[in-house]
Amino acid sequence: MHPTALGILGIGAFARALAHRARQGGVATVLGWTPMPRDRVASVRDGIVDDAPARPEDLLARCDVVVLAGDAAQNLDWLERFGPCIAPGRYLTDVGMTKRAIVARAGDLGLGDRFAGSRPVLEPSARWDGGVVVYVTPAGTGDEAAREVAHFWESVCGAHPVLLDAERHDAQVALSAQLPALVAVALAAVLESRLPPGVGLSGAAQDFTRLPCDGDLVHVSALWQNRDHGAAVLRHAAAAVERLAASLEAAGPADFAAALAAAQAWRRSLEP
Amino acid sequence: MHPTALGILGIGAFARALAHRARQGGVATVLGWTPMPRDRVASVRDGIVDDAPARPEDLLARCDVVVLAGDAAQNLDWLERFGPCIAPGRYLTDVGMTKRAIVARAGDLGLGDRFAGSRPVLEPSARWDGGVVVYVTPAGTGDEAAREVAHFWESVCGAHPVLLDAERHDAQVALSAQLPALVAVALAAVLESRLPPGVGLSGAAQDFTRLPCDGDLVHVSALWQNRDHGAAVLRHAAAAVERLAASLEAAGPADFAAALAAAQAWRRSLEP
Repeated sequence: MHPTALGILGIGAFARALAHRARQGGVATVLGWTPMPRDRVASVRDGIVDDAPARPEDLLARCDVVVLAGDAAQNLDWLERFGPCIAPGRYLTDVGMTKRAIVARAGDLGLGDRFAGSRPVLEPSARWDGGVVVYVTPAGTGDEAAREVAHFWESVCGAHPVLLDAERHDAQVALSAQLPALVAVALAAVLESRLPPGVGLSGAAQDFTRLPCDGDLVHVSALWQNRDHGAAVLRHAAAAVERLAASLEAAGPADFAAALAAAQAWRRSLEP
Repeated sequence: MHPTALGILGIGAFARALAHRARQGGVATVLGWTPMPRDRVASVRDGIVDDAPARPEDLLARCDVVVLAGDAAQNLDWLERFGPCIAPGRYLTDVGMTKRAIVARAGDLGLGDRFAGSRPVLEPSARWDGGVVVYVTPAGTGDEAAREVAHFWESVCGAHPVLLDAERHDAQVALSAQLPALVAVALAAVLESRLPPGVGLSGAAQDFTRLPCDGDLVHVSALWQNRDHGAAVLRHAAAAVERLAASLEAAGPADFAAALAAAQAWRRSLEP
């Protein structure tokens, strides 16, 4: 689905970048809605969207594709309230970090033919340039809706859509994106309780422990929605930390040097 | 001690920055030595040092303060070979990450009146601007030598010297600088073994797991020299990771949200 009119619910940094990219991608009209009237007025005044109607139903009636871009709790709420307003042949998606909860809710609401979940792998500071990966997760048996949503990301944003079921997606995102933020929370707890006052942190420690302050990465509701996978990957991390401690207590440096070399080799293999 | 001539053994990035700062700080002559002849020639040709004699003894005879700027193993070797050549009233120090091993060796060699360990808290990319903290650790009863070395850092580099015994220093550096790199090694092991091929990492995961590739931060010999403290802080980290996993398995989000809020509040309290 290449929409003539795109709607975005929730006007934050993501919506601004998406609206900009959609116009470059040939979408004639971009509409926005957000709960606060003054934010709607500002979004039109600043040229982020073409119009921001006061009633979300007016936006839904005019748009071929609507993107939910609030936080995880807002997206679930908006799905329930507005999902049933989407006419057949039009599509709804969200861009939250985890997908099981919203996809299950869409299935329960019988919206599998109109809704699929999405997660663009887009850092807070990143642009849509250069082929962003977007995971698209079908709701129930909604493979056709997922294909239409995938085509939206590809044709409008030049993205690389990857269809994936929500269960596998959430297991992956726990490792690839949530685990570092969770480990940073644990590291901050150790440093807070054990570092003497006045002792400065290394630059790496400063950068890493800043992660839990980044709302986009560790929003509580997204982490909590994925808590089974989160707990599982944290347990793997705790075991790996224990193994490394044991290698430092071994008779010689061989095991420890091997662990360090393996980490270096793996990390370098990711560089282009 | 504000030296007329400063000597640096080991000519890498640290030596370049120190030589530059020493000249700004009024040191008339900076000499360098490093094992490879071509590196010595290049250091003079590129204007990093004024001269780079082939024999380290010739450097030692001409300098009031000599800084060992090799890796941990080189510094220990150079201390043994050249420490006894330092005349009374002249001073030797090193800039390795951990201090117990080299300070103990200096004590064993009877060099407490001429040697004190140093650790400038200087990131690889950082400059000497703006009052860098330098920890100075006495060898044996060598408090006077430590004061002279501290005065060198203060008067030449505009640094803030902090005198500290080597045991406390090494316990602190395990937390403030080595723990993040060690946790990154453990995180890399989890991601390597569990992430499906082709799944991209978040930017934070990319940045953090790059740490073990930074030779300055996690040089094996410095980590191994501090392995008792390293193992202890890793065990604290493993326990904190386990506690966070347990908070995700609790009946409600209260414990987990509290852990996240504590990490955020602590980290924000460090910002200026």
